Amino acid sequence: MSYEAINLRNKFELFTETWTPKVVAEMNDYQFKVSRLVGEFIWHNHPETDETFLVVEGELRIDFRDGAVDLGPGEMFVVPRGVEHKPFAEKEVKLLIIEPRGVLNTGHEGGELTAARDVWI
Amino acid sequence: MSYEAINLRNKFELFTETWTPKVVAEMNDYQFKVSRLVGEFIWHNHPETDETFLVVEGELRIDFRDGAVDLGPGEMFVVPRGVEHKPFAEKEVKLLIIEPRGVLNTGHEGGELTAARDVWI
Repeated sequence: MSYEAINLRNKFELFTETWTPKVVAEMNDYQFKVSRLVGEFIWHNHPETDETFLVVEGELRIDFRDGAVDLGPGEMFVVPRGVEHKPFAEKEVKLLIIEPRGVLNTGHEGGELTAARDVWI
Repeated sequence: MSYEAINLRNKFELFTETWTPKVVAEMNDYQFKVSRLVGEFIWHNHPETDETFLVVEGELRIDFRDGAVDLGPGEMFVVPRGVEHKPFAEKEVKLLIIEPRGVLNTGHEGGELTAARDVWI
C-alpha cells in the first residue's frame, strides 16, 4: 500500500488566503488544520474543548484577558477550554491548529470571520 | 497571569535518552510527547486509537506490513488504530508524538522497550 507523509510547508503552498483553516489530517475525532493568519482576530473561547496552536513559520501572539503568549517557529501552546483568547499576528504567520472535529474558529461568537468547517487541502 | 510557550527544540535539550517519550503538553485527554528514537522499534499496534508522528529533526521511517512512509522535518503521519507499525531511524530522530493519555509506546506487545507513561519534561 502507498503511505504518504503530510508535509506542512508544502500544504501552505496550496493556498494564500488567511483565517481559513484547512484540514490536513485526522486522528480519531481530532483534526490537524493549517492556517495563515495576519492581523487581529476576535475575542472568543471554546467552552467544550482545549485548542492547540503550533507555529510553523512566523510569529503569533495569543492575547488573553490577563496576559499573552508569544509563539515562534516550533513553539506551541494549548489554550484551555473556556479561556477567552484573541490570536494576533503583525506579519503573516503559518500555523498548525489541533482540535476536535467540528470546532468553529470563532467559537460561539460567530461573525464574518467564521470559517467553513471540514475544508480539506 | 504568565503564559509560556512550549519550545519543542528546547525540550529536546533537556534529555538525551532514546525511546522514552516525555509529555510536554496536554489537550483534553490527549498528550503531546517529545521523543528521541534511533534504530529499530518492535512491531506493535494500538487497537484503541490512532497515533500521530511529527518529525522535528532528522528522518523517521515507519514500516507497515505492506509498505512504509518516510518522514523528514516538518512532516507528519497519522497511523490508524489497529495498524501494525514499526518505527525506524538510521540516525537519531527527534519527534513529537500525539495520542490519548495512557497509550503505551509498545501497544499491547510489552517488552523491554516499554516506556513509563506520564513522564513530563
